[in-house]
Amino acid sequence: MKRRDFIKTAAFAGALAGGTAAAFPAPAIAKGLRKWNMTTTWPKNFPGLGTGAAKIAEFITKASDGRLSVDVYGAGELVPAFDAIDAVGNGSVEMGHGASYYWKGKTPAAQFISSIPFGLVAQEQNAWIYYGGGQALCDEVYATMGCKFFSGGNSGTQMGGWYNREINSIADYKGLKLRMPGLGGEVARAAGATVVNIPGGELLTSMQSGTIDALEWVGPYNDLAFGFHKAAKYYYYPGWHEPNAILDCFVNLKAFGELPADLQEIVTIACQAATVNMTSEMAARSGSALARLRGEFKVDVRPFPREVLKELKTLSRKVINDIAAGDALSQKILASLEKFQKEQMDYTDIAERAMLDARAL
Amino acid sequence: MKRRDFIKTAAFAGALAGGTAAAFPAPAIAKGLRKWNMTTTWPKNFPGLGTGAAKIAEFITKASDGRLSVDVYGAGELVPAFDAIDAVGNGSVEMGHGASYYWKGKTPAAQFISSIPFGLVAQEQNAWIYYGGGQALCDEVYATMGCKFFSGGNSGTQMGGWYNREINSIADYKGLKLRMPGLGGEVARAAGATVVNIPGGELLTSMQSGTIDALEWVGPYNDLAFGFHKAAKYYYYPGWHEPNAILDCFVNLKAFGELPADLQEIVTIACQAATVNMTSEMAARSGSALARLRGEFKVDVRPFPREVLKELKTLSRKVINDIAAGDALSQKILASLEKFQKEQMDYTDIAERAMLDARAL
Repeated sequence: MKRRDFIKTAAFAGALAGGTAAAFPAPAIAKGLRKWNMTTTWPKNFPGLGTGAAKIAEFITKASDGRLSVDVYGAGELVPAFDAIDAVGNGSVEMGHGASYYWKGKTPAAQFISSIPFGLVAQEQNAWIYYGGGQALCDEVYATMGCKFFSGGNSGTQMGGWYNREINSIADYKGLKLRMPGLGGEVARAAGATVVNIPGGELLTSMQSGTIDALEWVGPYNDLAFGFHKAAKYYYYPGWHEPNAILDCFVNLKAFGELPADLQEIVTIACQAATVNMTSEMAARSGSALARLRGEFKVDVRPFPREVLKELKTLSRKVINDIAAGDALSQKILASLEKFQKEQMDYTDIAERAMLDARAL
Repeated sequence: MKRRDFIKTAAFAGALAGGTAAAFPAPAIAKGLRKWNMTTTWPKNFPGLGTGAAKIAEFITKASDGRLSVDVYGAGELVPAFDAIDAVGNGSVEMGHGASYYWKGKTPAAQFISSIPFGLVAQEQNAWIYYGGGQALCDEVYATMGCKFFSGGNSGTQMGGWYNREINSIADYKGLKLRMPGLGGEVARAAGATVVNIPGGELLTSMQSGTIDALEWVGPYNDLAFGFHKAAKYYYYPGWHEPNAILDCFVNLKAFGELPADLQEIVTIACQAATVNMTSEMAARSGSALARLRGEFKVDVRPFPREVLKELKTLSRKVINDIAAGDALSQKILASLEKFQKEQMDYTDIAERAMLDARAL
């Protein structure tokens, strides 16, 4: 057994600091029991995202009968949210859960994995990961950070966000104080917005105090939980900046390599199951949350104007290509996604999209 | 260990007939090794459907390190395709893979699980199964057949099908010799079509000989594999009759109950992973198949006219309610699906659907 397997939760701080971890009980070692920690970028059991991470841990622990037992920690409990990739990359934590674009400072290509403005929707993104060459490309990106990549959830198409200023033309983005991370934020910046990044927990007060004019978070289920309807006039759709959003589950490369093949397979299928599980939870709960937002809170739910979306789409292509331009791996990911999207769009247009239109007749 | 665990593949016929199965090797028993058979309604490794069933078996066998090893059999290898539910229900086979509407003769409510014309799309159907009360309702339906239910794949939105007669108005369904199973077939029959059910393997020749005027199968990937473009003039969309189609993985209730908790969890997450895996495979491969159908084979891909879809939608509601009317369990399933769809449609309209529209601008 490796040193990692001896690390107990209680001894974690010492282990992180390089101290000697308390010994794992002898009977546990004899049975080949492994204990892993998962550090997440969300508060523990945060709706949809934290519960999605917990689902992966639950699947792995139950399916392995505790031979690989995973304990989940919220942001800041083991390491700060955005240090998760470093902690997992250097092996002080075995597993992490977050969103790829959080790691663009380490590996620029990571930001192209989570979501692309006007890019793939969830079903297409899954198709790219599992059957479109995506898994190998994502593994290549994460290997530069010492990790193995798994899709560990997907939000589905997000909402456009909560606004206290109307968006009637692209000019309305000028001077808009907007919270929007990722590539979408870069596009909004190019349209003239003042883009800020504020942690989720401070968003409501920032909106109430007028520090920001607008924000995007996830979708009806998560947004209702935060109470953004108390601070904003308009709830815009669609989330052009995040047509889907993969949540990533990353595992220390060495720790994963040292697992026996059956536990590797359990981790792999647990993440694959968690991917559809999270989208399902968010969709099911967003249905009823939207009904409440409309009915109980009389929220003004409105579409971005067609012309605004058209201009944002054109702008997105330019901004995204510019960002990818300086980095070979980013260009490789982007080229793969664009080729895949071209064929998928043609198919989705006559399958899911045509069906959704027919159903609405 | 139970008798079931002693059944060897080679001794299968004898076991089915109630004979004494050959003893399982002693070392295997000591290690707690179980061998299950999966009987499917597809030819072995049939594109998308058979490969999806094989994926479930592979996930389970690898994740359990062979403690539960699943062998997959094509239709007719152990029992005929449509006897699968009986063989699994009576325990002579442990596991099966097919489509719920195949079992409507045994339990009418089963036909409401696979797909409903103008009903849920795949993402919504998964949301219903995992977070909308669907799993418990499906378990209730399958328990009447001695089985536990799992979603074991989803085709996504299917195509409308291959036609040698144009559909310009609902009147064009009159006398149309159409291969379309399930509830969609009942709706087409109500519209005046002569609906026949023909096994997949005979479809191409039936179309070439004029025995049928039209057929639906799955989508571009599967349809190209069968070569229907060689026999039909028009490829219509969308598949209003199957906005999604769950493939079911059913397990003998007693066999499932006798598994230790970790193997139960492995079966559960393997099926959940396989659900998104199949949709991903079909989407990825349908993208390139459609490009080939359009480019290389110059297929005339065309939408059903709006008015036809509108009338089919109205007709569907009536036909479906009539079919459910005589059966309490059918009504219970249908009521749950309809309530769920109402909220989901409102959400999908401003999420996925609005995004697909924005992307196409």
